[in-house]
Amino acid sequence: MSLFMYCQSIEVSMKAGPDICDITSALIGTIRESGIENGQLSAAMVGSTGSLTTIEYEPGVVEDLKRTINLLAPPGIDYAHEAAWHDGNGHSHVQAAMLGPSIVLPIRNGHLKAGTWQQVVAINHDNHPRKRSIEVTVIGNIG
Amino acid sequence: MSLFMYCQSIEVSMKAGPDICDITSALIGTIRESGIENGQLSAAMVGSTGSLTTIEYEPGVVEDLKRTINLLAPPGIDYAHEAAWHDGNGHSHVQAAMLGPSIVLPIRNGHLKAGTWQQVVAINHDNHPRKRSIEVTVIGNIG
Amino acid sequence: MSLFMYCQSIEVSMKAGPDICDITSALIGTIRESGIENGQLSAAMVGSTGSLTTIEYEPGVVEDLKRTINLLAPPGIDYAHEAAWHDGNGHSHVQAAMLGPSIVLPIRNGHLKAGTWQQVVAINHDNHPRKRSIEVTVIGNIG
Repeated sequence: MSLFMYCQSIEVSMKAGPDICDITSALIGTIRESGIENGQLSAAMVGSTGSLTTIEYEPGVVEDLKRTINLLAPPGIDYAHEAAWHDGNGHSHVQAAMLGPSIVLPIRNGHLKAGTWQQVVAINHDNHPRKRSIEVTVIGNIG
Repeated sequence: MSLFMYCQSIEVSMKAGPDICDITSALIGTIRESGIENGQLSAAMVGSTGSLTTIEYEPGVVEDLKRTINLLAPPGIDYAHEAAWHDGNGHSHVQAAMLGPSIVLPIRNGHLKAGTWQQVVAINHDNHPRKRSIEVTVIGNIG
Repeated sequence: MSLFMYCQSIEVSMKAGPDICDITSALIGTIRESGIENGQLSAAMVGSTGSLTTIEYEPGVVEDLKRTINLLAPPGIDYAHEAAWHDGNGHSHVQAAMLGPSIVLPIRNGHLKAGTWQQVVAINHDNHPRKRSIEVTVIGNIG
């Protein structure tokens, strides 16, 4: 039984950061289109001011996570990136690097295997609205 | 030479968070069962209050890492998640999201390729004991 | 169309941590050698005092990220790891665990698919210079 692969790009319009967007249903759509029953899905944020992780996507956790992200690398302090580039997003770069751009999740019986209250989220850390791209690669068995 | 895949679920009984558990020997067992000689192992924590990473698993580092995790998102402060759900684990959600649910590691010559003092750990951030599941997907060449 | 795999080890001589090194061109070399057109690249740091992430690799962001890493787990405070092992790198272990050892990135049309200003970096958190190894596994379609 040989392995198959399916690649897809997901685009999300996001607000100025930190903005947190649930991309779970898009990933479920990718898995369904792939026809893959068991395997893994890897997803990566394109660009150095975005990140991926999983949370329980409810307004409280979203607010709490934004606060911690902004405490880890606050928007209002001096950044060496700012001194050279003056684009106001020094904190965005640091935040995204700390969280990391990629994630890999299991596919079991045709479904994304995650907790009932565990959603996959894209985070835009940039200081202005961005259309963000996430590249998804599904590898596994069909049928 | 075609690629093969092997999937397995690991279950770990964990204490209230932050609890850090060495799952390296379970992963080594999965690789051995898979028969895969070279490739990669991806592992993902099921649930939004758990995470995976690697550490030198000795009591000092375990204690140090717990301290930093609890400084990043302290248990004792107010969380918006708490205000709505009253389950006492607002910090757990934030901690797990910051560390991330997944990891991908190399398999070389039938072995998990990691440092001598580098172990794979599951972290339960939830505020009560949990039986946690980790889904493991091994992809690679046999023989 | 079956999947192929290509494995390679990258070695980088790094300064005492936090030292941040751009490994993008080495990864691009690995992809080219693999002949893989579409798929994914996973990379993992060998050793518990190193990590991988992506940043815009310019001196300002590098400096800003080092600062945040050293604020998250400062070199100058007491660590339980230190009390037992006296090797001066308690903070290194914590920093590396928080950032995580691995990353997975897309390959599209023979290229590493990342943002124009997004580079893959290895971070040495150890308190002395290290030759660090990163294991790379490329999986995907050829031609």
